[in-house]
Amino acid sequence: MRKLLYIFTCLLLSYKAIAGELNSPNGNFKLKFSLENGKPTYQLDYKNQAIILPSTLGFELVKAQDLLDNFELIAENTDSFDESWKPVWGERSEIRNQYNELLVALNQKGTERKINIRFRLFDDGLGFRYEFPQQDNLQYFVIQSENTQFAMAGDHTAFWIPGDFDTQEYNYNKSRLSEIRSLMQEAITPNASQTQFSPTGVQTSLMMKTDNNLYINLHEAALIDYSCMHLELDDVNFIFQSHLTPDVLGHMAYMQAPTQSPWRTVIASDQAADILQSTLTLNLNEPCAYEDTEWIKPVKYIGVWWEMISGMSSWAYTDLPAVKLGETDYNKTEPNGTHGATNENVRRYIDFAAEHGFDQVLVEGWNEGWEDWFGKSKDYVFDFLTPYPDFDVEALNEYAHSKGVKLMMHHETSGSTRNYERHMDQAYQFMVDHGYNAVKSGYVGNMIPRGETHYGQWMVNHYQYALTKAADYKIMVNAHEAVRPTGLSRTYPNLVGNESARGTEYESFGGNNPDHTTILPFTRLIGGPMDYTPGIFETDISQYNPNNTSYVRSTLARQLALYVTMYSPLQMAADLPQTYEKYMDAFQFIKDVPVDWQETVILEAEPGDYITYARKDKASENWFVGRTNDEEARTSKINFHFLTPGKKYIATVYADQKDAHYKDNPKAYQIKQYQVNSKSKLNQYCAPGGGYAISIMEVTDTSTLKGLKKL
Amino acid sequence: MRKLLYIFTCLLLSYKAIAGELNSPNGNFKLKFSLENGKPTYQLDYKNQAIILPSTLGFELVKAQDLLDNFELIAENTDSFDESWKPVWGERSEIRNQYNELLVALNQKGTERKINIRFRLFDDGLGFRYEFPQQDNLQYFVIQSENTQFAMAGDHTAFWIPGDFDTQEYNYNKSRLSEIRSLMQEAITPNASQTQFSPTGVQTSLMMKTDNNLYINLHEAALIDYSCMHLELDDVNFIFQSHLTPDVLGHMAYMQAPTQSPWRTVIASDQAADILQSTLTLNLNEPCAYEDTEWIKPVKYIGVWWEMISGMSSWAYTDLPAVKLGETDYNKTEPNGTHGATNENVRRYIDFAAEHGFDQVLVEGWNEGWEDWFGKSKDYVFDFLTPYPDFDVEALNEYAHSKGVKLMMHHETSGSTRNYERHMDQAYQFMVDHGYNAVKSGYVGNMIPRGETHYGQWMVNHYQYALTKAADYKIMVNAHEAVRPTGLSRTYPNLVGNESARGTEYESFGGNNPDHTTILPFTRLIGGPMDYTPGIFETDISQYNPNNTSYVRSTLARQLALYVTMYSPLQMAADLPQTYEKYMDAFQFIKDVPVDWQETVILEAEPGDYITYARKDKASENWFVGRTNDEEARTSKINFHFLTPGKKYIATVYADQKDAHYKDNPKAYQIKQYQVNSKSKLNQYCAPGGGYAISIMEVTDTSTLKGLKKL
Repeated sequence: MRKLLYIFTCLLLSYKAIAGELNSPNGNFKLKFSLENGKPTYQLDYKNQAIILPSTLGFELVKAQDLLDNFELIAENTDSFDESWKPVWGERSEIRNQYNELLVALNQKGTERKINIRFRLFDDGLGFRYEFPQQDNLQYFVIQSENTQFAMAGDHTAFWIPGDFDTQEYNYNKSRLSEIRSLMQEAITPNASQTQFSPTGVQTSLMMKTDNNLYINLHEAALIDYSCMHLELDDVNFIFQSHLTPDVLGHMAYMQAPTQSPWRTVIASDQAADILQSTLTLNLNEPCAYEDTEWIKPVKYIGVWWEMISGMSSWAYTDLPAVKLGETDYNKTEPNGTHGATNENVRRYIDFAAEHGFDQVLVEGWNEGWEDWFGKSKDYVFDFLTPYPDFDVEALNEYAHSKGVKLMMHHETSGSTRNYERHMDQAYQFMVDHGYNAVKSGYVGNMIPRGETHYGQWMVNHYQYALTKAADYKIMVNAHEAVRPTGLSRTYPNLVGNESARGTEYESFGGNNPDHTTILPFTRLIGGPMDYTPGIFETDISQYNPNNTSYVRSTLARQLALYVTMYSPLQMAADLPQTYEKYMDAFQFIKDVPVDWQETVILEAEPGDYITYARKDKASENWFVGRTNDEEARTSKINFHFLTPGKKYIATVYADQKDAHYKDNPKAYQIKQYQVNSKSKLNQYCAPGGGYAISIMEVTDTSTLKGLKKL
Repeated sequence: MRKLLYIFTCLLLSYKAIAGELNSPNGNFKLKFSLENGKPTYQLDYKNQAIILPSTLGFELVKAQDLLDNFELIAENTDSFDESWKPVWGERSEIRNQYNELLVALNQKGTERKINIRFRLFDDGLGFRYEFPQQDNLQYFVIQSENTQFAMAGDHTAFWIPGDFDTQEYNYNKSRLSEIRSLMQEAITPNASQTQFSPTGVQTSLMMKTDNNLYINLHEAALIDYSCMHLELDDVNFIFQSHLTPDVLGHMAYMQAPTQSPWRTVIASDQAADILQSTLTLNLNEPCAYEDTEWIKPVKYIGVWWEMISGMSSWAYTDLPAVKLGETDYNKTEPNGTHGATNENVRRYIDFAAEHGFDQVLVEGWNEGWEDWFGKSKDYVFDFLTPYPDFDVEALNEYAHSKGVKLMMHHETSGSTRNYERHMDQAYQFMVDHGYNAVKSGYVGNMIPRGETHYGQWMVNHYQYALTKAADYKIMVNAHEAVRPTGLSRTYPNLVGNESARGTEYESFGGNNPDHTTILPFTRLIGGPMDYTPGIFETDISQYNPNNTSYVRSTLARQLALYVTMYSPLQMAADLPQTYEKYMDAFQFIKDVPVDWQETVILEAEPGDYITYARKDKASENWFVGRTNDEEARTSKINFHFLTPGKKYIATVYADQKDAHYKDNPKAYQIKQYQVNSKSKLNQYCAPGGGYAISIMEVTDTSTLKGLKKL
């Protein structure tokens, strides 16, 4: 039930008066809004410490007067809200949405144009957005620049990646704000498609820690029909300003009132764990738009993928330098003998999936066109419908279904989006006709229409189109290289995954930093789950492909932990079946770990150093713990208070051995079982680039506890 | 039957040697090809006079070495062809395709890249194109510039419009080549979307006349998956060079070998009529791609259109400044009372069409979205599916069909092409579901994707997509504001019309030059028919809309002539039924004139001055004559030699009265009937901006000839 508290204050205020104040429900956050010389300004305190110093708001417009100053306050409303809702899938089965709201209605004198700013203060932070009501003097407008400031109170430590309109696939950098400029050049490692905009430009979500041990996160929520927000730092004054993604004409967004911007979010706490536990991003999104969500189900999968990523096999069926769909007769070409997606190989994966309880098998390289898919700016690159001669789509789907397994579709677009949209209905129907219900889509390379980038309004609109059209076909979407998520999964829960960050594949392209996964939950995952595709047991890629000397900066034990620490409703066991077969004892954890949770607890957290999660299976009383550790050896100290008092459990701990190391000795793992209850404690050694995973199964038959050490 | 004559000559030639020669079948044209210092060069003579002086060929590429010089001749083939084919519709029922061909295969030394140039010499002129064969060293390439020269032998007189990547809707200018530069500024009149590129840039087809009374036309044929060609004049040396249409990155075309350019065409003769009669453009296109063409039928139509163009009524249902499809509830809005496409009004047009034998009624403004359709760069501007509340699509189609009439669909895209493509299948299916088989599409305003232009490769690809998809639904397409045609109707005969020039609507926007239609057949119509929409009887627009003081620069008699002189399988009687009802005697010609022909004869022709056509109905023995006249009073002198000797006919001559004038006295027409046969002659006065139309009906019952004067 919605409790409505209307305090209608109509104030005719002087320029310098404080226009509005707002507190969070528990009073920790205090927001102030004012018009300083007609400029809309806000500031935010947390427990009486400044999180955001006075910061201005507004827009520059194309061929129209700016919306930056000369404002007067027309009205000010406050409101409160407190409801709970249940996500279709997630880290918890119920989410409380509680906030206090301040809505300021402004009029720009002279132009008589109106703009509202809506502030919502939650116990975990602030969200605010601009709203452009229906009005005579502002109907169609084009945004040249959004000038939303986030003035920092000091030279904080930040975990950042370079601002870039085309990719997020960078290792994170940890530095003070003042050091960003000098570190930027080195931070820009090569990528298939990349476009930076400033030597102090960074992406969101941006994670920071102050010298006072406050944790601050900046991001956005509900990015729909707008341009993706980056941040540009004034590194003299430590003021961030929003920097949207331009289109090819240099315009940021095309708007028609009534409309609104996405929410700009500030999550803050003196506890790092609170950042991870924040539900603010989801809460700012609209409720689920679909009536029926029965068809949306979390998925655990394996796939014909890593063997291509590592270079063992190929996506392409032939080694022709170029092909033309519909003209190249693949029945007459010479197969290269290294094609991964063959009938025989896929059946092997299906058998493995069926034997070990996996839901789906992703198959990449199933369709005509992979010979010249990348780097050619090729318009008609795939048709998403025509398999290679050695991939029998009907027989393989039949085989999979007979074993209770589905195949997962793959739509690599190569960034050729007009081509994808032309084929989309047929491609989705093809999926339905053959029993697929989930697609991994990709946007590798520069965009077509040429001149557009991955993160502009044009492409944000495309990703949304692909997502909602998929829902018409009851298809779940896992969009790689798309714009990073902003909580849209609340409204469109068939968005079950994105990549939009540097994932496991980069372990084969030179390696991720050992602390990468101790940062991602604080940055990339704030907006939504990531299809990180962990589970690499053979970390030495040269074992698969002698020409590839890359290695995974992780111990085997930490790979197991990632199924808990990298929340996602889609989880892939990415390595090859034949490798898993050599480590079935460790693999057991992957088989056991669920992909949907009723509760999530943070046991330990420090961005860039370590995170320890505990999560409760949605469908049982079992709990799972995961710890990801940075490049330093550390001892994790946890207790099991989250367990139900009075219940007994068997904890199976998959951990690093004392001499494990992500580089020299990644496979040194050990598996120990203990009897645990809510009073148990554990000190567990974590190797450099290591960690541990624990499955905690409720015990009903206490005889199974016999001989187990108690924690 | 194809007669093949192969003369294979493999010559290893020195740089300066003549590499190849070719004559037209009748020997009038002589082509020479050579490599001049490694540069491919061609020249063309007609009856031993230079039409094209030595001109170079080649390309500049993006990020790759140019294809301009360092070539050597690898091989040279000649061939001949002589076949006839029947078009689905056209100016004649059979077309002879006879040419001699020279194919030169070149290799660029050093880069070892191969390029072929294929020359076809017909009795009406030359076509040549570049071909890029499958090869190792040239697979994907991006054209920065196509440098095809057409070196003129002198300062010819040209009929030209400014080179422009977005529109052809200009009045023609007649001047010497040397004067183009000084006249350009004034030539660029305002347009909804326009982008010039050079003070000496012009569009094709370009019509010229030399001081030696040779007529020369430059154009292209078979523009598919390439960028539209303009010409840029070096006005010191009188050399034209191809200037393609760039994309937003400044690139002209993205290519993958094996592929080819469109054909570049040079039509020439000492008879102006030969230019009009040329079938070269069609002959260079591929044969019909469709197996079944039963569903493609020429159409005579009227429409709810001119009343909006003149300003009497509106496309929009309301006067709201802005709407949002799916959000604006039109059932709750206030209608403006001036909407054209209402049930009542459309039924009136249907009644008129049925009564007077018209096939279809075009209805513009039938669908939601017209309130803010233009100038807002609006993405989701139309859905092509949702009628306004006062347009009952089912009832109206039923009503029309009950009277043997169809409605004609209208798809104005506002240049928002991603939106159109997203809706296209549904929009076409909607047409099929409601009994439409023809659509007039429009691309008014700047393109979306923003930065693209109307004539770049991107949009050429879009128009082709819309056309071939329409064929899947057995739909005919009449695309306005699209790229000008290049003979594609041979291959895709459901392309029944384009606008792509300044049409009758501009008579309401300030007027066309009185000689406009004496030029268009020499320029715009070389590539294909134009939906010129003539038939305006009330030339004073202020009679419809007092605020519009524009008037049609034409007498009523010349409006009738246009149904013969402006060939099109789609012919509109564009004026309002209530106006036609006042001039039913004149209107009789429009009712009688067919839209499909078995034979076409030119009786008189001088570009910019006058043209007189005679055409024979495909379905009968009847002939129709039309004369369009420029701003000078003239006397047309024709004979009827084209009639079948021995047959008798009644000729009804609709002509200007002696005091007619397009400005002061446009409606002064007279109708006279005569008895004619193949020996008859006629001298007929034509007013300024005037002309005449003659229907010549075969007589079987000679009693009908009683009392008629003999010519």
